[in-house]
Amino acid sequence: MVELELIEAVKAALGPQPARVLTGPGDDASVVRADAVLATSTDTVVDGVHFSLATHSPADVGHKALATALSDIAAMGAGPGEAYVALVMPPEFTGALELVGGMRELAGRHGVALAGGDVVSGPVLAVTVTVTGWSGAADRLAYRSGARPGDLLGVTGELGGSGAGLKLLNAGESQPDALVRRHRRPEPLLATGLALAAAGVTAMIDVSDGVATDAGHLARASGVVLEVRLADLPVADGVESAEFAATAGDDYELMFTAPPERRAAIEQAAIATGTRVSWLGDVRAGGGLVEIRGPDGAPVDLRGYEHLR
Amino acid sequence: MVELELIEAVKAALGPQPARVLTGPGDDASVVRADAVLATSTDTVVDGVHFSLATHSPADVGHKALATALSDIAAMGAGPGEAYVALVMPPEFTGALELVGGMRELAGRHGVALAGGDVVSGPVLAVTVTVTGWSGAADRLAYRSGARPGDLLGVTGELGGSGAGLKLLNAGESQPDALVRRHRRPEPLLATGLALAAAGVTAMIDVSDGVATDAGHLARASGVVLEVRLADLPVADGVESAEFAATAGDDYELMFTAPPERRAAIEQAAIATGTRVSWLGDVRAGGGLVEIRGPDGAPVDLRGYEHLR
Repeated sequence: MVELELIEAVKAALGPQPARVLTGPGDDASVVRADAVLATSTDTVVDGVHFSLATHSPADVGHKALATALSDIAAMGAGPGEAYVALVMPPEFTGALELVGGMRELAGRHGVALAGGDVVSGPVLAVTVTVTGWSGAADRLAYRSGARPGDLLGVTGELGGSGAGLKLLNAGESQPDALVRRHRRPEPLLATGLALAAAGVTAMIDVSDGVATDAGHLARASGVVLEVRLADLPVADGVESAEFAATAGDDYELMFTAPPERRAAIEQAAIATGTRVSWLGDVRAGGGLVEIRGPDGAPVDLRGYEHLR
Repeated sequence: MVELELIEAVKAALGPQPARVLTGPGDDASVVRADAVLATSTDTVVDGVHFSLATHSPADVGHKALATALSDIAAMGAGPGEAYVALVMPPEFTGALELVGGMRELAGRHGVALAGGDVVSGPVLAVTVTVTGWSGAADRLAYRSGARPGDLLGVTGELGGSGAGLKLLNAGESQPDALVRRHRRPEPLLATGLALAAAGVTAMIDVSDGVATDAGHLARASGVVLEVRLADLPVADGVESAEFAATAGDDYELMFTAPPERRAAIEQAAIATGTRVSWLGDVRAGGGLVEIRGPDGAPVDLRGYEHLR
């Protein structure tokens, strides 16, 4: 019965729902007015595995769980939809409302509705967020499979900051710091993803595992070779090296391919939504591979750098 | 990387997707062609809290986690949609493919697509299932809030069987038995829910907490008094009493209200979808209460019977 009371408190904390949510939490299911096409992604984070309550407040956990899920919607170029949140909570965890508060603040800023969920008890804090994004047509979305030989490879923002922040946290650094904040409170690039899709990207993915690994996902899905120039990687201030920035992950920037003639439109789309584009590579014909090249053009093997995975 | 391999194996186990799933697992998000209105529900079950691997096979767990989530879609009267499955698994759990197999078998039978998910490690087996259902219009769905004074209260099938099965399991009874099967493999009434909504129910809910508790949810959401006659409760064979059947829960039958003139249409809708209706009460004007009456018409207090919650 404690769960029921908590569910009521969480429902109250969600506040009013946007108009497209016809029935929010409280019925057997939430009911939402649909657009033509639905994009959906589910992500789970577990205390001690994906984050630590020792270094993250409950609000950080809520923010991050929702942000990382929404980043997948951003990478599809879909518009903001709903989030459905399932919490597994140990009896001693008292931060549920603060956790949901962290989600609510982020959701509100991006026009995402917290439209439903579940709260149960269990031996560890685990947060599963299922997010939806809407689009008027399937061909307006950006898939991993659309990269074509001759395309350019681009990425938004700066890389490595989240990994550097995690290193600071693991070293016991408690000072609030831009890098630590970057790790605790990643920002999903929903508006940017939508704008990039409209500006003509051919393929897109969010950078959750590091550029090197995520470029591999794009390359395999598209059946192309992606050449990445380490020297053109946008390395965040305070990050030790381009190699670290390419492998640390958790940046939640958007990486994409586009034909050269869309270059200016894409740069403008990024700037109009508060970020910038770095062109860090090229797409060649070939079989699902990534080639990382150093400043001298020679291949670089980054396998030794995957220290955070 | 083990997780990635497992995700690949799970993807392969899902088999082909129905045509409305434009992009299944493997991109940043799944993409589905929408109908006008989306109903969504999320449910989490945790080993040792909601089920026990000591008494449930991995396939039972998969079946049950999906079935209980789909029961919420059935209770809305929505058509089958997609399921998104997030698994938290301890390293020693080896039943992931069997668990997904249990889901796949159930999903296939109901026209539900297993369209996406996540697999992560953690200290306990926890399964979160987010299910969608589609409808051509919001007013074709059945909500908890639509019961009106003068309506009849009905329920499908038989009650108490799952609770009696759980009692057998807890007593160490390992014989395969209809009651045990009923507990391990509840069947979501998707076709029945859709047919009942079309036949004119005014409110509907699935019986997950027992008729007594779930009638309370309907009564409060609708702002009415529900009178329940214990003598008219459809008690499953092998269940000790109507009191047990009214409180044991986990039956996943559908309880609903409807005006008397819809009675025949509703009975036919149930029969056409393989079940039957028992009329077990009436709706009166009043303030969100349930009155349980014994065979002599006197009020019955069931609070002492909530032994399984």
